[in-house]
Amino acid sequence: MGAKDNLWILTAQCPSRLGTVDVVTRSLAESENYVVAMNSFDDKATESFSIRVEFRPLGGETSLEKFRELFEPRAERFDMQWQLTEPNHRTRVAIMVSKYDHCLNDLLYRYRTGELAIDIPLIISNHPDLKPLAEWHGIPYFHLPITPDTKPEQEEQVWQLINEYRCELVVLARYMQVLSAAMAARLDGWAINIHHSLLPGFKGAKPYHQAWEKGVKLVGATAHYVNNDLDEGPIITQGVQAVDHNHYPEELVAKGQDIESHTLANAVRYHIQKRVFLTGNRTVVFPD
Amino acid sequence: MGAKDNLWILTAQCPSRLGTVDVVTRSLAESENYVVAMNSFDDKATESFSIRVEFRPLGGETSLEKFRELFEPRAERFDMQWQLTEPNHRTRVAIMVSKYDHCLNDLLYRYRTGELAIDIPLIISNHPDLKPLAEWHGIPYFHLPITPDTKPEQEEQVWQLINEYRCELVVLARYMQVLSAAMAARLDGWAINIHHSLLPGFKGAKPYHQAWEKGVKLVGATAHYVNNDLDEGPIITQGVQAVDHNHYPEELVAKGQDIESHTLANAVRYHIQKRVFLTGNRTVVFPD
Amino acid sequence: MGAKDNLWILTAQCPSRLGTVDVVTRSLAESENYVVAMNSFDDKATESFSIRVEFRPLGGETSLEKFRELFEPRAERFDMQWQLTEPNHRTRVAIMVSKYDHCLNDLLYRYRTGELAIDIPLIISNHPDLKPLAEWHGIPYFHLPITPDTKPEQEEQVWQLINEYRCELVVLARYMQVLSAAMAARLDGWAINIHHSLLPGFKGAKPYHQAWEKGVKLVGATAHYVNNDLDEGPIITQGVQAVDHNHYPEELVAKGQDIESHTLANAVRYHIQKRVFLTGNRTVVFPD
Amino acid sequence: MGAKDNLWILTAQCPSRLGTVDVVTRSLAESENYVVAMNSFDDKATESFSIRVEFRPLGGETSLEKFRELFEPRAERFDMQWQLTEPNHRTRVAIMVSKYDHCLNDLLYRYRTGELAIDIPLIISNHPDLKPLAEWHGIPYFHLPITPDTKPEQEEQVWQLINEYRCELVVLARYMQVLSAAMAARLDGWAINIHHSLLPGFKGAKPYHQAWEKGVKLVGATAHYVNNDLDEGPIITQGVQAVDHNHYPEELVAKGQDIESHTLANAVRYHIQKRVFLTGNRTVVFPD
Repeated sequence: MGAKDNLWILTAQCPSRLGTVDVVTRSLAESENYVVAMNSFDDKATESFSIRVEFRPLGGETSLEKFRELFEPRAERFDMQWQLTEPNHRTRVAIMVSKYDHCLNDLLYRYRTGELAIDIPLIISNHPDLKPLAEWHGIPYFHLPITPDTKPEQEEQVWQLINEYRCELVVLARYMQVLSAAMAARLDGWAINIHHSLLPGFKGAKPYHQAWEKGVKLVGATAHYVNNDLDEGPIITQGVQAVDHNHYPEELVAKGQDIESHTLANAVRYHIQKRVFLTGNRTVVFPD
Repeated sequence: MGAKDNLWILTAQCPSRLGTVDVVTRSLAESENYVVAMNSFDDKATESFSIRVEFRPLGGETSLEKFRELFEPRAERFDMQWQLTEPNHRTRVAIMVSKYDHCLNDLLYRYRTGELAIDIPLIISNHPDLKPLAEWHGIPYFHLPITPDTKPEQEEQVWQLINEYRCELVVLARYMQVLSAAMAARLDGWAINIHHSLLPGFKGAKPYHQAWEKGVKLVGATAHYVNNDLDEGPIITQGVQAVDHNHYPEELVAKGQDIESHTLANAVRYHIQKRVFLTGNRTVVFPD
Repeated sequence: MGAKDNLWILTAQCPSRLGTVDVVTRSLAESENYVVAMNSFDDKATESFSIRVEFRPLGGETSLEKFRELFEPRAERFDMQWQLTEPNHRTRVAIMVSKYDHCLNDLLYRYRTGELAIDIPLIISNHPDLKPLAEWHGIPYFHLPITPDTKPEQEEQVWQLINEYRCELVVLARYMQVLSAAMAARLDGWAINIHHSLLPGFKGAKPYHQAWEKGVKLVGATAHYVNNDLDEGPIITQGVQAVDHNHYPEELVAKGQDIESHTLANAVRYHIQKRVFLTGNRTVVFPD
Repeated sequence: MGAKDNLWILTAQCPSRLGTVDVVTRSLAESENYVVAMNSFDDKATESFSIRVEFRPLGGETSLEKFRELFEPRAERFDMQWQLTEPNHRTRVAIMVSKYDHCLNDLLYRYRTGELAIDIPLIISNHPDLKPLAEWHGIPYFHLPITPDTKPEQEEQVWQLINEYRCELVVLARYMQVLSAAMAARLDGWAINIHHSLLPGFKGAKPYHQAWEKGVKLVGATAHYVNNDLDEGPIITQGVQAVDHNHYPEELVAKGQDIESHTLANAVRYHIQKRVFLTGNRTVVFPD
């Protein structure tokens, strides 16, 4: 058995208060669940508490049941939101793309090799271009074109598909459409977008061109949760890449692809491993 | 009050066993000590458990006393080694140097501005060169020359001074002498050395020259605890720097100084903030 | 026309001597070839001169012919080895793999999107596993199993294929076989290998396991030219990745895949863009 | 003799045109000046040519004189601005500071050890605090307080001092005052400022607080030439540092100091080694 096999993950969040850690750890100990690694953080600014525990139920299902029994009423007294994630859980991810395929290709690779513990029940795009890539991986590809006029209907279709396929996470892997406020609200907290700049710098369109105009010496990418404000959702992680005078906008576009793919993959991994917690418009991310 | 003021640190380590976390967190909760941040790790390879907690005693001294009362017998049952570090504790550090002053200069700056919570009661060197730098900072400087013949006496003098000045940590900031086995044994676990390579690569003398011979494209530095085996002690942290064909050995020496200083300062900070735990010949380092 | 379209590359190397740069630049100017970017370096240690020029022939084919006419006899007087690479040249690359596919997958992606200006006429493997991946990209896949006994024959087959398909570069993308001295000699200077450690550290088998044993805090990858000495060929580029106590050998293996792929892709790009020059057992690499 | 001793630097810039490189290299060759390293770049966007050559005059002063004779009229025909920098030239730098001393301390260290080939004839501050640091290094310290009312006079005094001490470069090492348009114009192109953010993000006051509000996962520093637009001058180099939820604004301030010092030192080094060329509001920086 590998050192990390068979580990359950417990995550919980609640308002700051004395005893938050204890209520978690005591319940685990009393139910014979063995803690392998743990992180907690109490955010002063939002007065919120976040905890993530990797544990092994020594008594198997019995330990888990006993834990739930003990923990549920205690957690309630602390207004604690909590979640158990089982060892072999694969998060169901809907990927949305347009024509750029570098992020999609990277996610598909990590999916195919199992590096990311995800299932990809479907890929949705406003263009037909990336269908062959999806098909090679045996993943249904939905081409849902969009125009300003058809946007509401298209988004409704997207929403139906996400639900029909019971997706737990939506990844905008260079989906070049601005979501409507309504759609953004529906996806609040469980959709990840990659933006090709170090936000909040260079929001909106053509960030590499903006970056070149300003003569920056570093370009980057930002993975963030989608919310109502365009390119303003809570940041999960950022990546960076040195550039120089030799890089015109088109070279920046090419040069940035690796850091975009890598940054998005990191954000997805943090999310599915339950490392990310929201505190206001910022995130707590326990490192892997 | 700043978000991080007035925080105590509890660190503990013991053999892996069910309930290790609970015994810590329960004792803190019952004594009204408020956990602000926590990390624990259970190392599969050595079957050892390490935990670090930042907490605020809500009831002041009373909470602390109560914690000690509750925790001591419980910790004993787990064979737990533990330590409490108070908020304003400044670790007493003896710095040893030869002629290179970049690491010393960097540590002195961080000491002077309070960035590193250390006191430097004395600096020991086998050369007189860096005395003016020590004096400007008002720190006693002991020039203890060394030859193969006088090594045992010199090391004994060093040992006396470290004790006389009640130092808690010894930092070899480019001290260009190999310690005797006896001296290394005395300092085991509480002396940090900086080696100017990415260990275990390029051990021993002139690592930058070795690196140049091999045509590497990255050079680095390694901060590690001193032990009996030269350049083989447990690694705390490593830093790295890209280089190219334009860097001959003397340029590598110059180029590496920043990464050496920075890597050593990180190791000292991790150590004094009680982030480093030994598990066999490897370390657990909880990030800051 | 993009800023970098239609650029020819001139590379040359010769013993150090007064006038080496001039002979190149004068010939370019006199034949109406417009220099867009240039790097030269005169290595003191080996007393060798390397130059790389990107230029645009203002008079088209006429300029190029005139350049060749002028330059050839002058270069000869300087014992200069030189090469012209045309704007749309795609280097023909044979990729060799075993079972790990992360480097292959990455190279295929960069090939498919044109990010790397290469053709991949064939993929050779000692295992059948990666055939589907090759096929999806429409690339012939040769499964040439190997045993200690059949090694000479297998290598001969490999050699025939490389020649038959007129390959200009061989990339060992995690090909887990040690080449014979004879084969290594044949590929000297035009085969790139990726080793999953920061060479010269952790040569040979299972470098991540070696790294874990030593408790390093950084792992890395090294792309180098193949030569007679195992893992000792001239280093082209190296990449690095921070790790911590949480990473057992199997996590290091997983964690290192990105840096391996990325480092190998960089080396291939430097090579095909004619940025790499040998000076003894070290390389000069002009940055992109 | 070290590999890099006794090297002269020639830098030149002019409008793009056929033969720009040749006019430089031919003149060097004909006057028996030996080229050791060279970089040139022809910027498509601004149609300007930049070149930097390190060379060794084989015939000593005779070679240099002959070069000047040959090159001057040729350069004139290309509207070339050019400059020769002698091997042991130490740039005279005026440093301006307020109360933060991390950048000053770092520059003083690199000055003292000779790592940066600069002289620091004077330090100017609007506060008296850092006088002892200046004095220990034996550098005159001018305390010129400033209020909105006295700003014109103060800036005039600064200007007089810079001239009186014949400074070639002004470094604003966390000088917390906005220069007047008139003063900025006077210093255009030969004053370097460090701003503690990744410009153009977080311009103006308290960038770390702005960064914390936005929940970024990377903070950085930007060294740029001063011009009329606040925090908008041409960027020379940028540095970056990962941060996480554990860093409140005051921790970001502390954490950022190293990257600020380091980034500023790099910019100063690039400048004094004549690696930086302006092309519009962007820079060409040939790497060291």
